[in-house]
Amino acid sequence: MDFKQELENYRKIVEQELEKYIRKEECPERILNESMEYSLMAGGKRLRPILVIATYKLFKENYNLIMPFAVAIEMIHNFSLIHDDLPAIDNDDIRHGKKTNHKQFNEATAILAGDGLLNQAYIVISEELMNKNEIEEELKIKAFNEFTNAVDRMIAGEYVDTEYEGKEIANEYLEYMHKNKTGALLQCCVRMGAILAKANDEDIKKLTKYAEKIGLAFQIKDDILSEIGNEKILGKPVGNDKKKKKCTYVTKFGLEESKKKLEELTNEAIEIINNYSNSEFLKELAIYMKKRKK
Amino acid sequence: MDFKQELENYRKIVEQELEKYIRKEECPERILNESMEYSLMAGGKRLRPILVIATYKLFKENYNLIMPFAVAIEMIHNFSLIHDDLPAIDNDDIRHGKKTNHKQFNEATAILAGDGLLNQAYIVISEELMNKNEIEEELKIKAFNEFTNAVDRMIAGEYVDTEYEGKEIANEYLEYMHKNKTGALLQCCVRMGAILAKANDEDIKKLTKYAEKIGLAFQIKDDILSEIGNEKILGKPVGNDKKKKKCTYVTKFGLEESKKKLEELTNEAIEIINNYSNSEFLKELAIYMKKRKK
Repeated sequence: MDFKQELENYRKIVEQELEKYIRKEECPERILNESMEYSLMAGGKRLRPILVIATYKLFKENYNLIMPFAVAIEMIHNFSLIHDDLPAIDNDDIRHGKKTNHKQFNEATAILAGDGLLNQAYIVISEELMNKNEIEEELKIKAFNEFTNAVDRMIAGEYVDTEYEGKEIANEYLEYMHKNKTGALLQCCVRMGAILAKANDEDIKKLTKYAEKIGLAFQIKDDILSEIGNEKILGKPVGNDKKKKKCTYVTKFGLEESKKKLEELTNEAIEIINNYSNSEFLKELAIYMKKRKK
Repeated sequence: MDFKQELENYRKIVEQELEKYIRKEECPERILNESMEYSLMAGGKRLRPILVIATYKLFKENYNLIMPFAVAIEMIHNFSLIHDDLPAIDNDDIRHGKKTNHKQFNEATAILAGDGLLNQAYIVISEELMNKNEIEEELKIKAFNEFTNAVDRMIAGEYVDTEYEGKEIANEYLEYMHKNKTGALLQCCVRMGAILAKANDEDIKKLTKYAEKIGLAFQIKDDILSEIGNEKILGKPVGNDKKKKKCTYVTKFGLEESKKKLEELTNEAIEIINNYSNSEFLKELAIYMKKRKK
């Protein structure tokens, strides 16, 4: 199967798994549930859960066993998008070509929908801990712990991003922000996949390095797209970072330097996993993340 | 030891335990951490963790084993206060006699501090799952699952509260809102305490009933204090519910009816646990919750 096809297959599998957690029942908080669904099913690329699956598949076949962890991280990703888009934070009106959550519903609902998705990720994990299967409980608990810490780092990174908006920041702060805001969660995907597959410490270390590289590359690509992406494909306005005086890789180092860095990081990531016999998909994923138009 | 003394002892123990989780290090997100600390250490009554401890102590002595679960629930309580106080939700300026989080810091910081505390509760629980001690892992996982569901109910209840502000609502909706918004977390405290102490199903059922009673009583007392409390003791303005056309027990049924219901529920709660030989503290706690001035 070619890469694009495989990626699309995984995306569909993730969507189907997410569907299981959508709440359709008639209840007083029905609109809150709709609002959670609105963002969760808004058509993201599902790169994070796919990264969990693909890493797990380096070692083990039966990836349906780890789907709860994969979708839990997508819930976290979507909670963070809802809160980041809020007027008090990034004040964005459009995402994935649709109104942001607080524009479609209202601010109170968006705040609570974000809270709800953050917590729902942990409902999913706690249920998975109650569910006995082939994956050892110890591994699940370790993955859960990784997960909580990654979310913590993501929130800290978002805070730093907000705090330094419009201010001149040192290179080390920009790196810190990137590592935490985007990197921590992407790294967690890879590490969780490896941990749940019972990979050994050396493999986990190597894959963590791979994740660091693609994590930074991902953020740089995001910054590039924010600057020169195609609004229609991207599904959100471009040029906002400059307007808001956001400090990004592009606003700090310029477009050419950013593209060069993106290229370097992608190559380094691929190099790290070159020795695994079945790492083709993860390598292609790094290239896809570099080339993506949205 | 008399009840007041014992209550104060527990409160101090909880404060000390919470102190362990305060982050003091110099880092780019230092102010976010300060903001989380600001709310977490603002001087709440710590009733929820005390309820976990007191229920556990019906069955087992060594309550320091369950302190992580007790403080995790206090983190959740404080996350919910920060988000509820936000301009888009209750728009409150004062709590515990101090500025609310978004007034002391800013809205973006308050949103992220709430997110941070919600997630920190799960960091604490995940670390406790990594930590092997006398409490069986199965019980911890069960408590974790109860916890996630209670937080979910709390968020739903808060949504219903927000949604129906200024609207006439049916009695059943008011009850639903109370049960979820305040009741679910209080019930979770009692159930977690019992579960972690390996109480049998019958005891858990009985204590759940007790928790339902004091949960509703707690909310009615809150509504009464919001109407006729002493602002200085309460640490926040009174009369706001009426101004905001909030639907509460008091605005719906009047003060006298609410006081009567509070009395009834407290008596029923005490009656339920009357047969336990060492339930004195939990009984006194129900009375304290009824009589409290803040």
